[in-house]
Amino acid sequence: MNKGTLVVISGFSGAGKGTVLSQVLARRPDLYFSVSFTTRPPREGEKDGVNYHFVTRQAFQERIERGEFLEYAEYVGNFYGTSMAVIREKLDQGIDVILEIEIQGAAKVREKMPEAVSLFLVPPSFEELSRRLHGRGTDSEEKIQQRLETARREAKEIVNYDYIVVNDTVDRAVGEILAILIAEGCRKERRLHLVEGV
Amino acid sequence: MNKGTLVVISGFSGAGKGTVLSQVLARRPDLYFSVSFTTRPPREGEKDGVNYHFVTRQAFQERIERGEFLEYAEYVGNFYGTSMAVIREKLDQGIDVILEIEIQGAAKVREKMPEAVSLFLVPPSFEELSRRLHGRGTDSEEKIQQRLETARREAKEIVNYDYIVVNDTVDRAVGEILAILIAEGCRKERRLHLVEGV
Repeated sequence: MNKGTLVVISGFSGAGKGTVLSQVLARRPDLYFSVSFTTRPPREGEKDGVNYHFVTRQAFQERIERGEFLEYAEYVGNFYGTSMAVIREKLDQGIDVILEIEIQGAAKVREKMPEAVSLFLVPPSFEELSRRLHGRGTDSEEKIQQRLETARREAKEIVNYDYIVVNDTVDRAVGEILAILIAEGCRKERRLHLVEGV
Repeated sequence: MNKGTLVVISGFSGAGKGTVLSQVLARRPDLYFSVSFTTRPPREGEKDGVNYHFVTRQAFQERIERGEFLEYAEYVGNFYGTSMAVIREKLDQGIDVILEIEIQGAAKVREKMPEAVSLFLVPPSFEELSRRLHGRGTDSEEKIQQRLETARREAKEIVNYDYIVVNDTVDRAVGEILAILIAEGCRKERRLHLVEGV
């Protein structure tokens, strides 16, 4: 049996990752969405164990010390981390795993698992990103400017990703991600066994 | 403007390339299907200028001497060749080009245009391939055995392709090819201009 594919998705804060990913998962219920650990407080409507495992800084620290994380990072003042054991188990079972992760974490995953496929989700323009962050109404103006500055810095790292997905409409972004998942499953490396021993 | 993508499709004789490709083109009329030159006689229903440009061996030889071919090759006693000028013109206009070509020709295209994306279409099994070749009813038993032997030899070259598409049902094969076209358009190399100068 083929191992599953690990798909790493990053994107600017405000690029619409949440909406796009929930629709991808609705269309592909066979995918496993890796739930990260974080020390940031839940936003309106977010559920523990679904969007994130919400933990205290102390509990997070203990997991670091036990070596539980494939990667972890601090981002805009909060910690985010990914549990290694669960991901490896799913991949070994042939299940594709989606990991939503910020840019520093993605770099670490790429280092430890070079076979991972990485996607970066961008809004159609920087102006649109600013508009969306303001429209969300959850952050102060200072926080928004901080996020925009982070996005400008992060843009330079996109060159390290395999794919860039443009979120101009949710349908198009979802369609592109689903197509990338199919295409990656067709890669020669994953299918050569079909023509061996002929 | 982005240049178009050159997509090279090969497959065992009898893998169903004709049926699959005609449906891909029906779904993506914006693609340009590169029509090859050949010295083999037209099969029932094939049209000159649509399926191939059917030419005499002498006319083919003259085109070789004028240096018109991106590649040409002899295959099961007939010549097949691809005109370079038309393909470059379409790619420069940003149009994706599909090129159906046998395995030796694909190797030459890959050499001259390493940015080409290559797909190999396989039947679900070798038994199925034999069944399809017999079912087609256009070839003698000797010719069929020759084609199967060629397929066995060709299987060793599939490792040089980027993708392997399985034609178990036409719908699935068409879906995989359409997905690969979308995914290739999302590759970082083709989209970095979207995040430059941010």
